[in-house]
Amino acid sequence: MPPDRFTLGLVQMAMDDNSDANRSHALDMVAQAAQQGAQVVCLPELFASRYFCQREDAAAFDHAESFDGRTMRTCGACAEKYGIVLVVPFFERRAPGLYHNSVAVFDADGVCLGHYRKMHIPDDPAYYEKFYFTPGDLGFQSFSTRFGAIAPLICWDQWYPEAARLAVLRGASALLYPTAIGWHPHEKAAYGPAQFDAWQTVQRGHAVANGVYVAAANRVGLEPCDGQPGIEFWGASFIADPQGVLLAQASHDKEEIVLAEVDLAHLETIRRNWPFLRDRRIDAYQGITERFLDAPAKTAPDAMS
Amino acid sequence: MPPDRFTLGLVQMAMDDNSDANRSHALDMVAQAAQQGAQVVCLPELFASRYFCQREDAAAFDHAESFDGRTMRTCGACAEKYGIVLVVPFFERRAPGLYHNSVAVFDADGVCLGHYRKMHIPDDPAYYEKFYFTPGDLGFQSFSTRFGAIAPLICWDQWYPEAARLAVLRGASALLYPTAIGWHPHEKAAYGPAQFDAWQTVQRGHAVANGVYVAAANRVGLEPCDGQPGIEFWGASFIADPQGVLLAQASHDKEEIVLAEVDLAHLETIRRNWPFLRDRRIDAYQGITERFLDAPAKTAPDAMS
Repeated sequence: MPPDRFTLGLVQMAMDDNSDANRSHALDMVAQAAQQGAQVVCLPELFASRYFCQREDAAAFDHAESFDGRTMRTCGACAEKYGIVLVVPFFERRAPGLYHNSVAVFDADGVCLGHYRKMHIPDDPAYYEKFYFTPGDLGFQSFSTRFGAIAPLICWDQWYPEAARLAVLRGASALLYPTAIGWHPHEKAAYGPAQFDAWQTVQRGHAVANGVYVAAANRVGLEPCDGQPGIEFWGASFIADPQGVLLAQASHDKEEIVLAEVDLAHLETIRRNWPFLRDRRIDAYQGITERFLDAPAKTAPDAMS
Repeated sequence: MPPDRFTLGLVQMAMDDNSDANRSHALDMVAQAAQQGAQVVCLPELFASRYFCQREDAAAFDHAESFDGRTMRTCGACAEKYGIVLVVPFFERRAPGLYHNSVAVFDADGVCLGHYRKMHIPDDPAYYEKFYFTPGDLGFQSFSTRFGAIAPLICWDQWYPEAARLAVLRGASALLYPTAIGWHPHEKAAYGPAQFDAWQTVQRGHAVANGVYVAAANRVGLEPCDGQPGIEFWGASFIADPQGVLLAQASHDKEEIVLAEVDLAHLETIRRNWPFLRDRRIDAYQGITERFLDAPAKTAPDAMS
């Protein structure tokens, strides 16, 4: 049986152009997190490189690696060395011309429990991910680790209530979102605060709606692109409890370790007092699998007679 | 074609033991809202009575009325008189022993466009709704009114992302939640702020996840029950924009009209820039219609091969 509580640690870091240096720096920060008591540690999305999706460049596929590549081997060894669960985002090369934005989960003995492939792929100015990543085909998963059941999801997934719900229905006690999100510098003054607040609010909403811990591990720093200002990653990695209460939050501009405790007794108390899972109308949710419900209510999939 | 913007008004009111007085007072406040420019007005849940669900009492079924009862007739006339859309919660008597917690929607010509029956029914200490209300069987709906497409949902529904999503997939520009929620006085000091914040956060989360306006019309005031302190309804009726930004919010303790503009151009802009509906993985959401996903990922409904 896993223990009834564990310490979750998020690595908020800045990346440079040297992938070897990024990997090494990430593992240093993982070691720091472990030394500070973290038992489950999550790295940011695509931590081994700068956020190359700011432009479409076929050469950037060189950053990808196979599931048994270098990042995986070193991270597995790191998990075993410190006796921690390690959540490792990587750019997955599955076959020539077939790539995913993925996360591997290593248990505390260094064994890889499996991986998750980002299901929702964005495509917005400077976030050209549809060029690089095939949408995931492994569904939404929860992994039973030595310390507890965790569900890795990735960045754009964080806007989707369906993803959070399905991960919780699989048994997850904590949703972990490795992330790469930031401001367009020219928009920050006018729209930045509302954008950041919407991002945190929708995730805290998942915590509330599902009675689950939610954590986001973001990168930080300005990454210019093609002589333009690029993206200012907004950091603010955070951990919220099953009522959406912020337990810990990093700054917007510095590398940090974020630590908080996941307490299954607290989760149980919240779910007993706010029993949303009890009352779900699973007889009436069929329309969720439709793109849009254009038809009149009386004939469409979620209607009942 | 409906106009590209309309003013939404919420009535936040206190109820006493006299249903006639409650109805009359509610219609006075609707008139005030109309005079202040509201074009779509929403009343609080079960506004014609005190919140009788604080205890289980078969005599309380006397509060129920048929779909063509007194509340409906007077509200239809009120909608026509002021040329407003009126969202009218009522305790629906459908047949002997068959009751619903419902909402009727009157268009600005006084014609009733249909009604919604609360789909998710709570049952918590002092909220014994499962004793009174049969779960709704009309599904999640959006009504096309003179001023725009609105979806009525009711109180406990507000914790369910599925309800918000399905209403938006039906075309709603605004989700309207008539509500009766408050603090147990003995819990307020310790848990009150987190409870209120969770309630507002999950609804603002629906606004963000769906790019939709969200409004909650709550009652206010202390309603004692059987010599006990009862429930202190927390008011704070609010309207949030499609990015979750609070446009207006009432106090915790006073009767008020809450007004804000629903702007379809703003909604369009937010949805273009945060195109969550575009990327939904409708091929992978089947598990949403399951109670829990106990089975291994590789054989369960939301997995893919």
